Amino acid sequence: MIRSHLKAALIQASFSDDRDENWHKLKPLLEQAAARGNQLVVLPELHNGAYFCQHEDNREFTRAEAIPGPTTEFLSTLAARLRLVIIGSVFERRAAGLYHNTAIVLDSNGNLAGSYRKMHIPDDPGYYEKYYFTPGDTGFQPVQTSLGKIGVLVCWDQWFPEAARLMALAGAECLVYPTAIGWDPADDENEQQRQLDSWVITQRAHAISNGLPLLAANRHGHESGPSSNTNGIDFWGNSFICGPQGEILSQAGVNEDCLLETEINIDQCEKVRQTWPFLRDRRIDAYSGLTQRFLEDIAAGITNGEKTTNGEKND
Amino acid sequence: MIRSHLKAALIQASFSDDRDENWHKLKPLLEQAAARGNQLVVLPELHNGAYFCQHEDNREFTRAEAIPGPTTEFLSTLAARLRLVIIGSVFERRAAGLYHNTAIVLDSNGNLAGSYRKMHIPDDPGYYEKYYFTPGDTGFQPVQTSLGKIGVLVCWDQWFPEAARLMALAGAECLVYPTAIGWDPADDENEQQRQLDSWVITQRAHAISNGLPLLAANRHGHESGPSSNTNGIDFWGNSFICGPQGEILSQAGVNEDCLLETEINIDQCEKVRQTWPFLRDRRIDAYSGLTQRFLEDIAAGITNGEKTTNGEKND
Repeated sequence: MIRSHLKAALIQASFSDDRDENWHKLKPLLEQAAARGNQLVVLPELHNGAYFCQHEDNREFTRAEAIPGPTTEFLSTLAARLRLVIIGSVFERRAAGLYHNTAIVLDSNGNLAGSYRKMHIPDDPGYYEKYYFTPGDTGFQPVQTSLGKIGVLVCWDQWFPEAARLMALAGAECLVYPTAIGWDPADDENEQQRQLDSWVITQRAHAISNGLPLLAANRHGHESGPSSNTNGIDFWGNSFICGPQGEILSQAGVNEDCLLETEINIDQCEKVRQTWPFLRDRRIDAYSGLTQRFLEDIAAGITNGEKTTNGEKND
Repeated sequence: MIRSHLKAALIQASFSDDRDENWHKLKPLLEQAAARGNQLVVLPELHNGAYFCQHEDNREFTRAEAIPGPTTEFLSTLAARLRLVIIGSVFERRAAGLYHNTAIVLDSNGNLAGSYRKMHIPDDPGYYEKYYFTPGDTGFQPVQTSLGKIGVLVCWDQWFPEAARLMALAGAECLVYPTAIGWDPADDENEQQRQLDSWVITQRAHAISNGLPLLAANRHGHESGPSSNTNGIDFWGNSFICGPQGEILSQAGVNEDCLLETEINIDQCEKVRQTWPFLRDRRIDAYSGLTQRFLEDIAAGITNGEKTTNGEKND
């Protein structure tokens, strides 16, 4: 179990396409985090370079690396020296032709405590991730660290309440989301605001539904598209930390490199779950449909459902 | 399918403990809703009287009635005369010793289109619902009406993303939540604000996750507790309607009887689901744990899980 209070932080930053330059930016922020007494630091998704998924290009696979590998080593050394649990992000080469978008967890002794391969992979204009990343096959398992069990999820996962719930049921004591999300500059201001609000709200709701604190670390800054056909992405920053009632504890602006920190009262999380006992009242006898793609057509007898190939119908 | 635009409304009101007085209040508001061109109106939970679940008292069961019964008849007559789809709420007597907290759906020809028996039942100080209401056994099935499929859920259901998701998978075209929720006057202002924010956020998140508009109709006003041991409940109003990006379209204040109305662009809902294709990317191969009570102890071999009594472990 995590101790009664946890000093947790995240780093929001813009990133260039030079790995060493990005590491040079992250290192003093991690040192500052440790100097200020933080125990856990979350980095944004794919912090080693530009968000390369704005196009589909075979050459981008040269960015991939093994775990352990250079990024694991870089963060491990810092974790051990600074006595920090660090959550980083790697474009993982698992085998030739098999790559993942993977979060790694370095324990405060420098050991690789575990990793999480992004389960939900987006694919929409400007975010061509299905080309690069094989969907994770490890399920939703929190990573055991010296601070407790960390429910590590990545970016697109944040739109799926199923992921947060499964992490909570598996014993996660907080949820963290390394992220790279932004606006299409062509969208109008109202649409941009709706998208940002949705992103914040859906994650605050995971905190509420599961009685868990949550940290979402995003990048910021404009990154040009690889061709003149695209507008590029305005990564929207707004990284935040919220408590187990979804209450915002700390939030970054749109455009700033920063260390965002908070002290999480872990005992308070249990009190919140006692006040709002959602885990007590889940109707697990009536949730089997959640493992189906769609139920309307199954009910109508048009399809059998992906799990019921022997002809039995789902309830 | 619901037509391309739907004029939908909800009624927020305080209620006395006199059924006829409450009906006398609701009737002109329903007439006003119809006169203003609305097609669908949602009423708050248990609108026939006081929120009687503040204590456990055998005499309260005399409030229960059959479906169809007096409330069905009252709303059916109005629905047919006003050409409205009305969603009402009944303390249902299903059999001696078997009672439910049930939402009824009257179609615009006055027919009872269907009902929904509240699946998740709360029980905490001031909300002793487990004493009165048997958990629903009909699952999460939207009700087919002349306007389309309505995903009817009730109050405590709003804290469970599973319920909203299952309604969406079963083809619901909007989500509605008749509700009775409020503050404990003994809680301080910050806690009260966190609770209200949580209530709004968790429902907006259901709209976002599922790309569906949502209507939450609450009561307002102070209702004294039945004994001097309790502070009573300050029902917090704040009924609202949001669109499929969780964007607030209309919201009531804390203390007002009102008709809240909006025009929902149903075509826009499909566009939102195309922009954010969450249903496409659900990892149904990895969600089986959602039908378990808890997974941490199962993984540790301490329990077998409620569904795996033959000794096999869940993944």
